[in-house]
Amino acid sequence: MTAVDFAAFVDRLASASAQAILPFFRTSIGVEDKGRGAGFDPVTAADKAGESVMRAIIRETFPSHGVIGEEHGDQATDAEFVWVLDPIDGTRSFILGMPIWGTLIGLLRRGTPCFGLMHQPFIGESFSGDGMSASYRGPAGTRRLRTRPCSRIEDAMLMATSPTMFTPEERAAFDAVSAESRLTRWSADCYAYAMLASGHVDLIIEADLKPFDIVALIPLIEGAGGVVTNWEGGPASQGGRIVAAGDRRLHEAALERLARG
Amino acid sequence: MTAVDFAAFVDRLASASAQAILPFFRTSIGVEDKGRGAGFDPVTAADKAGESVMRAIIRETFPSHGVIGEEHGDQATDAEFVWVLDPIDGTRSFILGMPIWGTLIGLLRRGTPCFGLMHQPFIGESFSGDGMSASYRGPAGTRRLRTRPCSRIEDAMLMATSPTMFTPEERAAFDAVSAESRLTRWSADCYAYAMLASGHVDLIIEADLKPFDIVALIPLIEGAGGVVTNWEGGPASQGGRIVAAGDRRLHEAALERLARG
Repeated sequence: MTAVDFAAFVDRLASASAQAILPFFRTSIGVEDKGRGAGFDPVTAADKAGESVMRAIIRETFPSHGVIGEEHGDQATDAEFVWVLDPIDGTRSFILGMPIWGTLIGLLRRGTPCFGLMHQPFIGESFSGDGMSASYRGPAGTRRLRTRPCSRIEDAMLMATSPTMFTPEERAAFDAVSAESRLTRWSADCYAYAMLASGHVDLIIEADLKPFDIVALIPLIEGAGGVVTNWEGGPASQGGRIVAAGDRRLHEAALERLARG
Repeated sequence: MTAVDFAAFVDRLASASAQAILPFFRTSIGVEDKGRGAGFDPVTAADKAGESVMRAIIRETFPSHGVIGEEHGDQATDAEFVWVLDPIDGTRSFILGMPIWGTLIGLLRRGTPCFGLMHQPFIGESFSGDGMSASYRGPAGTRRLRTRPCSRIEDAMLMATSPTMFTPEERAAFDAVSAESRLTRWSADCYAYAMLASGHVDLIIEADLKPFDIVALIPLIEGAGGVVTNWEGGPASQGGRIVAAGDRRLHEAALERLARG
């Protein structure tokens, strides 16, 4: 894979997924609508369609590569290159018509995240990184992404997807950080990580993540100058409990505060 | 004001506000940046700039009209026509870079909301209504907006901006409805109302709203077939405690459940 081929290939994956997903977005289906049957679930249908089309392109182009995905299982996870796919991260936003879900496309090389893309096809914006640099393309043009400096929890804007992702003990630790932070905001999923990489959010603390929720976001955060690990400071690529920060000093302060509980 | 003039005039207001606001959106200013001074608040600057430019256009075109706005106060509120402006509804989303804030432009005629627009200029979508009909314009094209049928709380997708908007008694009443509902989601501001008018959300229950938070949304919701009142079933245009539903039966069920507390 040359650099040029790679960028074009990833764009092809993202475009194909978008074409599969967008017909299901903002499809108004009330619970009392009878037309499509009570069992029809547009977000699952869209998720499956997006993953299928990306898997087909990967299989055709790089038959030796592995794939990890939510809807169609794992294959060849011991390959040198393994793609980690989540066509709709933020399914609740998708269901409610809110345009803050994203398509996550990550690539592991020998188990280490080496590229990640977050694509929001309705708005038409993408955030990508390779661990060394990160960039944005969207309605506001193209630019390099950089996290912003913020060393202290009391200055930090904190995000997390949902209070329900935490165990009671984890929630208590989260609340301790939240109480000290400048602002806490819920319900952002992958968009929070894109905003952290863009320098608008300082800290994300989550739990109960799957690898496909986080792998694509690691090279994005790191490429923008941020840090992302588990709550113990180890690799984030297995999911679970995650701390991401735009500033290394804030990341250290958050790990320490979480450990105190 | 003829119908054609009116649509063009409102578009002019929305465009002027967008031009004033967008330069401040996703302007990354860390708390440790020194360049623009510690007191610089991009969301307040943007809000003021948007309101000023809309007020200037209204004053020039309709000097007899009144204006109600957050940043620059109220004027001629006893006029036949009074504009109710909120350039940035969803300031926390704006601060965090999330594209789910909106510009609200409402018009009261003799105290009754007769037109409303929610415009999201970064995405380029607008939701508008006049109490009789409602329409959408955006990346997905132009279409008529209709709420969806949903008669029961247990089938409803419920939204609200923040748990902190409620008093403890209000929060208990909200939680009673939330516990019965199918899904509850926070952090949407005016976007929740746009999604209710679009048929993706069934119920919104809020409190502590100002008139400029809600006036523009009333003709949108009603034009799409929904119902919006205060918690007692009276007019919503004064703000305060608000219940909006896409289906009249659900609205009645929610009022009753809230009254039981």
